[in-house]
Amino acid sequence: MEEPSPSAAARALEDPAYAAAVVELLGAVAYGEISAFERLAQDARMAPRLEDKAELAKMAAVEYTHFERIRTHLEGLGADPMAAMTPFAAAFGDFHTRTASSDWLEGLVTAYVGDGLAADFYTEIAALLDADTRTVVLECLSDAGNSEFAVDRIRAEIARDHRIAGRLALWGRRLMGEALTQAQRVAAERDALTALLTGGVDRPGLDLAAMSRLFTRLTENHTKRMENLGLDA
Amino acid sequence: MEEPSPSAAARALEDPAYAAAVVELLGAVAYGEISAFERLAQDARMAPRLEDKAELAKMAAVEYTHFERIRTHLEGLGADPMAAMTPFAAAFGDFHTRTASSDWLEGLVTAYVGDGLAADFYTEIAALLDADTRTVVLECLSDAGNSEFAVDRIRAEIARDHRIAGRLALWGRRLMGEALTQAQRVAAERDALTALLTGGVDRPGLDLAAMSRLFTRLTENHTKRMENLGLDA
Repeated sequence: MEEPSPSAAARALEDPAYAAAVVELLGAVAYGEISAFERLAQDARMAPRLEDKAELAKMAAVEYTHFERIRTHLEGLGADPMAAMTPFAAAFGDFHTRTASSDWLEGLVTAYVGDGLAADFYTEIAALLDADTRTVVLECLSDAGNSEFAVDRIRAEIARDHRIAGRLALWGRRLMGEALTQAQRVAAERDALTALLTGGVDRPGLDLAAMSRLFTRLTENHTKRMENLGLDA
Repeated sequence: MEEPSPSAAARALEDPAYAAAVVELLGAVAYGEISAFERLAQDARMAPRLEDKAELAKMAAVEYTHFERIRTHLEGLGADPMAAMTPFAAAFGDFHTRTASSDWLEGLVTAYVGDGLAADFYTEIAALLDADTRTVVLECLSDAGNSEFAVDRIRAEIARDHRIAGRLALWGRRLMGEALTQAQRVAAERDALTALLTGGVDRPGLDLAAMSRLFTRLTENHTKRMENLGLDA
């Protein structure tokens, strides 16, 4: 894929509609990161072993560094990061309230599935962005080897007691359902962000068929992740 | 002060009693960091404004990086970091259980007072350590400008409603009392760590009078910090 030059990125942001959409998108990503930080730190408290606690704390710290990176970028665009994030507080808050973990393993599934979904979303949306914004979004992809930890721990627990698998499979379905519900709500409420996805006169975007294929890909990847954990999706 | 050469540091660690004490000390510091991480992340959830939440999340992330630094150092010494940390889980756990914040301002006072106490302790104990261990302990001192944030926010709240000051002053006394209780418990249980403080044949340490002066300094600094917040100690 050909990289647009930095000046092309700067030109893209001269379009006020596009610039507004980028601020909305980064606001959503930043809120997602700080929200993931809180969620992971909270779930770390339930970890049975100190090693597990340290792993979840590490994931939380990584989310915080992503948040800082995006906040700095928003400031560079002349936007107020907190104002950009605030519209997404309700959707992320509701997601986490409705999917509060009742134990450490549910928290670990949420960390793995949530991190994967976010990474998929960032990858998909990156293609629609100018080079500078794409770079900052893709920097939030790194998972620092946490996936392997989650997979190993969950598979080990299922090997120890196979009845866990049914409960965690249900949990994974609930997570995906709540994530889609909140994503739909955000799409309905945030016009600029939705316009970014559907494109503009001189900007690539997704038509209805492409949007449908995107959701199919997200769902398929979720299924693969559940299989990695040894769970039916 | 004259710096011992690195080889002097390595020689110091050849003394098994000193090496054991260093592992205990770093285990305690590491547990303190991960425990502070959890506490700050938990209190971040109570923050009324997104800016406040982000500040507490930042403090938590800083604690996590300190934890990683110490864990790596413990591994370099050939110690098992988790085994070194485990003996301190009960004391830190009890401290946090007995001082669980009932609101955001109490959490902020705990963050400020706790960070200050830890910094004082690290500074005091650093003088008794070999150069390498001293460096890693002093690296955990940096507060990244968080103190100013806590002072500004608490003073602003007291200006808004002066009745808060009485409640937070009581809270600060309770924090100091619980911290001393748990410190005493650790000192009673951990012989190697206590021996580090009191010194050895060829190692500087604190006699009873020096120990008493140390506690006086810690208490005086605590009083100054409470005054910074606009609170009676």
